[in-house]
This record gives sequence, structure tokens and C-alpha cells, in this order.
Amino acid sequence: MTQLDEARAGRITPAMRAVAEAEGVGAEHVRAMLAEGKLAIPCNVNRGEKAVYGIGGGLTVKVNANLGTSGDINDPALELEKLKAAEEAGAHAVMDLSTGGDLGAVRRMILDNTRLCTGTVPVYEAAVLARREKGSISGMTPGLLLDVIRRHAEDGVDFLTLHCGVTREGARFTEDRICGIVSRGGTLIAEWMKANGEENPLYTHYDEILDICREYDVTISLGDGLRPGCLADSLDRAQVHELYVLGELTLRAWERGVQVIVEGPGHVPLDQVESQVKIMKQACHGAPFYVLGPIVTDIAPGYDHITSAIGGAVAAMAGADFLCYVTPAEHLSLPGVEQVKTGVVSALIAAHAADIARGLKGARDRDDEMSRRRAALDWPGMFRLALDPAEAQRIRTQGMSNDPSVCSMCGEFCTYKVRAGEKKG
Amino acid sequence: MTQLDEARAGRITPAMRAVAEAEGVGAEHVRAMLAEGKLAIPCNVNRGEKAVYGIGGGLTVKVNANLGTSGDINDPALELEKLKAAEEAGAHAVMDLSTGGDLGAVRRMILDNTRLCTGTVPVYEAAVLARREKGSISGMTPGLLLDVIRRHAEDGVDFLTLHCGVTREGARFTEDRICGIVSRGGTLIAEWMKANGEENPLYTHYDEILDICREYDVTISLGDGLRPGCLADSLDRAQVHELYVLGELTLRAWERGVQVIVEGPGHVPLDQVESQVKIMKQACHGAPFYVLGPIVTDIAPGYDHITSAIGGAVAAMAGADFLCYVTPAEHLSLPGVEQVKTGVVSALIAAHAADIARGLKGARDRDDEMSRRRAALDWPGMFRLALDPAEAQRIRTQGMSNDPSVCSMCGEFCTYKVRAGEKKG
Repeated sequence: MTQLDEARAGRITPAMRAVAEAEGVGAEHVRAMLAEGKLAIPCNVNRGEKAVYGIGGGLTVKVNANLGTSGDINDPALELEKLKAAEEAGAHAVMDLSTGGDLGAVRRMILDNTRLCTGTVPVYEAAVLARREKGSISGMTPGLLLDVIRRHAEDGVDFLTLHCGVTREGARFTEDRICGIVSRGGTLIAEWMKANGEENPLYTHYDEILDICREYDVTISLGDGLRPGCLADSLDRAQVHELYVLGELTLRAWERGVQVIVEGPGHVPLDQVESQVKIMKQACHGAPFYVLGPIVTDIAPGYDHITSAIGGAVAAMAGADFLCYVTPAEHLSLPGVEQVKTGVVSALIAAHAADIARGLKGARDRDDEMSRRRAALDWPGMFRLALDPAEAQRIRTQGMSNDPSVCSMCGEFCTYKVRAGEKKG
Repeated sequence: MTQLDEARAGRITPAMRAVAEAEGVGAEHVRAMLAEGKLAIPCNVNRGEKAVYGIGGGLTVKVNANLGTSGDINDPALELEKLKAAEEAGAHAVMDLSTGGDLGAVRRMILDNTRLCTGTVPVYEAAVLARREKGSISGMTPGLLLDVIRRHAEDGVDFLTLHCGVTREGARFTEDRICGIVSRGGTLIAEWMKANGEENPLYTHYDEILDICREYDVTISLGDGLRPGCLADSLDRAQVHELYVLGELTLRAWERGVQVIVEGPGHVPLDQVESQVKIMKQACHGAPFYVLGPIVTDIAPGYDHITSAIGGAVAAMAGADFLCYVTPAEHLSLPGVEQVKTGVVSALIAAHAADIARGLKGARDRDDEMSRRRAALDWPGMFRLALDPAEAQRIRTQGMSNDPSVCSMCGEFCTYKVRAGEKKG
């Protein structure tokens, strides 16, 4: 039985209990939300001991870091370093998006080396295999896709991004776009459909996919293959068409006892971010929403950890549950270790700002304690509470004041120092 | 006659015309907005040739970078470097917040070396002089304050931050706060009031201040001396009390033909940011709103350029007109050159995201052109359009793909490449 089956049967599993304890909410709340599909605990039965995270259901917003090799930069040791950096920075989940080298080996290496919730995108491996074996992605058969999905499930992957909602009809609506289809998985499926003149095998074979996911209690992360790749394409017909297909697929998964999260954009003007969340929650029956960014301007390559922190914070305040980080390297190169860290911290800032904005019980406690430490000029206390103590300490040290009780910005005019001085005097 | 006088008399000045041209709006719109006080063009009659910027009135959101020495880091040459970095990154205004060394010399050096709109905070200099001459900030006389204000106006400063709204009554409301008063100017005034048992001289001598500002057409930036210094203190009685005092002072300035902008927080939970803007616009009669951040969590020292980009974008979308940057060094040290640049770019991202969100005519054009260049894999075109071309290029080069037409993230699976290949094939 899957977590969803158990929840519907009224039983609280150890995973539900662990999530409830971590979040400081009642286990019955977690069970009830899970039973409704509003909360997911991606938790493959084949994973060994691991940390368990709840996504959605009014819990704290979670953060995912994308890892993985590419054809150009294929260094498994580097991916391990990036994994470690993501964990240390505080990510809750990682996805292995490898497309270079021995994909199975990299995937199992990541699974073996992390306790974080882990996801993959099987269509990448299927496409790589199809290219290697048949010279073209159009040679990717439904059987190959299902085999790869089963292999990922057997390996213990907790959630699989599957672009089941990219249909021939939906793809047609992207023709007038500036950027067309920008999801890698969506592009592969669209090109396959064009080359083969057939419907998306992830859509036509959805029942078989559900059987596999049910067997291993793999959570399906319904990929938004038609997500907008620029502000101009946001909330267009293609995107919204797919969203309602994803809603239909959400219901079918729930019927089979399979947990679902739904992926979202992407590139969205700031004034549309809230609407994106509201329409998704409506179309997809309240399933947890997993957004990539969204970034709120297209003109800041090199700073998309910031453009996405803006969009992610507003999305999460409006109800998005899970933020996929965006690193400074987005649109430019495969990220390195430092960029992975920056991406995670930026997304955590967005997630935390939203937790506070949503009024989550206790969400502001750490902020308030930081504020007390600030007012007391207690620097060790401030560093202890900082999201990234080492970076805060580095910046303070780089421009140290002659008076170690304050900082070099205000020095003798430090507001806390002036006030303390007057109290003494 | 000040710009405000001229606007009310129905005359379009060269400054109004320059702003209208830069923004692509009608000169009559600029004049009408200025006449109503909803738009300011800080433009001291004693400044020589300079760039002229309009703040408010539905124009593009502007960005200010704070510069200036401190007691600990007093290096005028470094301030010039920071000024250059702020200009190159695209700031519209700079403020000299110096508190270390020969303050007049640094101020005049900055004024001589920039065409940007320039602001200062005279109370810092008055406090420094009072300490040097009388050993304590409590020795700062109203006459000294007025002298300093006049000197700044004579030197050509375009806008002066004056904490005229910090009253004894308002300051009392800060006693229950976690962080009390955190504005440097507000603290100096509050401590002066306590030590002397008298009302804020910037409040009691407001008419004389208006006379000076009128003479040089200096715009008053009404400082929010009681702004919240942590999330917990946001929208509290002290802050809102002061806001209505600032509203009263706004009307008095307008009566004298003096332009006004009003300063805002600071530290604000994300769900309160829009309310902050709405209440300010209501309390201060639609005057342009100049926010410092706001930062949306207290736990990210080292990353406050990001916490403030989130708050700034949402504030500007809600109607804030002018964003004061926050650098990664905030709360830790006086910022260096690189941090100034990062701060400006982060604030520009927030401002631009808000311009798009507000539906400003043409605001998305550059984004759309970037998206077209992306879809065409036109890398020189992308760099040309990027907010920070050098940084984008650096990241791309650091992880270059073997195929120079794509990037190392997706390589052969680049969505644009795959599609182009299929079109050819």
C-alpha cells in the first residue's frame, strides 16, 4: 500500500509521523492532507534510511536543488561535491538531471550518498539511450521509456518528473510563442511526437506508468513540458491547456493511490505569479505545486538566483509548496559548486519569507531571535542564527571595525551602541 | 521658482521635458504629476550640468546606491571607485552617507564626479561636528543643524534626507520594540531629544528648513526615523504614527513649493509589503515613496541584496517609486566596490520586474528581445541585452560547451538546438 492508500484508510504511517514531528503539526493533519492529495511525502519503498519531507498541505515550503552531469561536463565527483554543497546549504530535495556519462551509475551514486528526497527525469535517460542506440530521439519507444521508468523506481528514486501532459494538441499551441517549448523533457516529447506522428507515450501509457509508481510508491511530479520560457509566453493557451490535462492526470493518479506533485513555471511577470498559483491549484485539484523559479525578468542572466527568489517568494506566499532553485548559471552553463550553494540559499530565503508571510506558526521565531541578537550586538549569536554563517562572518571580517562590538558601516554611530551609551551616560 | 512652482503655474521646464523624453511620456503628464506632488525631479539649482530623473508619477522605478565613508573606513578614493561602480551598474541616484573624515570634502568630491541625482543626510554631519566640538551629539544645536542643511543645499545636493517626523510622542512608541529605533538619523534625533528634553529641532524648525530648500529647489526626502528594524516591529504604532506626521509635513512642504519624497522601511514581512505602500500613499497624499529594501527576512545577513530584491519588487509593484539598494554587506560592514555593484544590479532587477508588473508601456520590450535572442541562440545578442553583460559572459565562459552554439547545461539536448535540428532534418 502507498502512503496515499494508508492515509485514505485512516492510518498514520511512520513517514507521516516523522513529517508531523519535523513540522510541529499533528500527525492527523498530515494524514488528512495526504488523503486529500494536498500533501505528498515522496518516499520510495526501495530507498533505505532517509530523511522524509512533506510537500504541501500548509507545511513549510521546501527547496530542491538540481544536480547532474551534462554531455559537456561529465564528472561524477563534481556532482558529489555539488550534492554536499546543496545539503550543507539546507536543500530538502535534489534532482539528478544527468545527461552525460553512465546515467545509472550517477543516479545510484547520488541515491547512495544522500538522505534527501531525490528525483529524476527518466525521459532524459531514454533519449540518451535512443540516441546512442538508434541515432535519434525519435527512436525512443514506449517500451524503452517504461523500462527506464521502472529502473529509476527500482533504484529507489522518490519522485519522477514525467511530462505526461504534453499532448499533440497542446504542443500546437506553442507555435506562436517567442520561445516555443523550453522544457528539455517537453522538447524531447514534442519532437518525438512530430517525428513519429503519434501521441505522447507518457500520456498514452499513463496507466502502466501508474502501475510502476504504485508498486514502489513513487510520487509523480507531473512535468510542465509546455511551461513558458519567457515572460511573453506566460499564461498562454499552451500552458493553461496543459495545466488542465495535468489536472485530469492528477485525478487518475490519485485513483490508483499514486501521490502527485505538479510542476510549474518558469518565466512569469511578477503581476501574474499569484494567478499562476491560483489557476494551478484550481486546475489540479489542490495538488502540491512545485515551481521552477519563476523568474520575473528575462534580462538578468547571471542573476537568475535573484530573479527567481523574487518570483519564488511571491509564488510560495500565494500557495506554491516546493521551490526548485535557480542558480546564477541558469541560461549560461552547468552550475558549479559555489553556484549550487548560492542557488539553494536564494531559494531558502524565498521559501522562508513565504512561510512567514503565510503566517505559519513559529515561522518568524528565528527572525525574532536574530533581531534580539542584533539589538544586543551579540555577533556570535547573529552568526549562529544566520542562514549562511560563514558568508556573514566573511563579510564582517573583510571590513572589520576598530571597535569589535559594532560593524564598520556605522561604527561609533551604530544605533544600538549610541543608545546603550546614552543609557550608561 | 521651484520645479513645483513652475508646474503649478502650468509651465513645462527643461527638466520636465528631459524627464518626459527619457521616459517616453508626454511633458504635460510630467508637469501635471509634479504639480500634484506625485512626481519629484530632485534638481538643485546650484548643480551644474547633470542627468535629471523623475521619481514617481507612474514613471519607471528608480534605484539609489548609498555611498560614503565611516569612522572605520575613511578612504575618499574608495568612495570614488564605488561611485563609478554604481554608475556603471545603472544606478539613477547616489547618496553620500559619510560619517568619517572631512565630510564636506567628500560630499563635494561626489557631487563633482557624478551626473546622477545626489542626496545626503545633513544630521550625520551635524552630529559629527557636535561630537568633535562639544563631545556629544546632545550638543547639536538647531542653529548648527540649519547651517549644515544650508551648506549641503549650497553645495548642490539634490535631495536631503531629513528626519523631521521623529517626534517625542512617536519615539515613545518604540519602547516595546525588539530593535527600537534603527535609522541612524532617527537614533541621533531621539537621543538628542532625550538628552535635551526638547522636541526634534528638524520638526520645530521645519519652516526654516523649507525656506532653505525652496531657495535651492532641494527636494526633501522625509526620513522614516522610526522605520521598523526587524520584521517583528513592522507596521507598529511608532511607524504608522510617524507616517501620518510625514503626511502633515508633506502638505506643508508642498504649500511652500518644496518637492517631497517620503522614505519607507526597512524590514517588512512579505505579506505586509503591499499594505506598507498603500498606507504610505494614503497617509502622505500620494507623494513618491522611497523604500530601503524592504528586506523580508532577518536571518540572511550576507544575502540582504536578495531579501531586499524580493521586498523591493513587491513594494514597487504595489506603487513604491524609488528603491534604495541594499548590499550583501548590510548589517555586517561598510560595502566594498563589488558589493555596491551587486546591490545596484539586485535593486535594478526588482525595479524592472515591477515596471513590467505595473504594465508600463514598453517595459517588457528588452525582455522580449532577449527571449528572441535566446531562441535564436544568439549569444552576442543575449550579452548585449543583459543587465550585466560581463557577469553573464564570465559564467558562460567558466563552463563552456564543446559546441559553442549552446551552453554546457543542456549541450546537445538544448531545446533550441534540438528543434532547429529537427527542422533541418
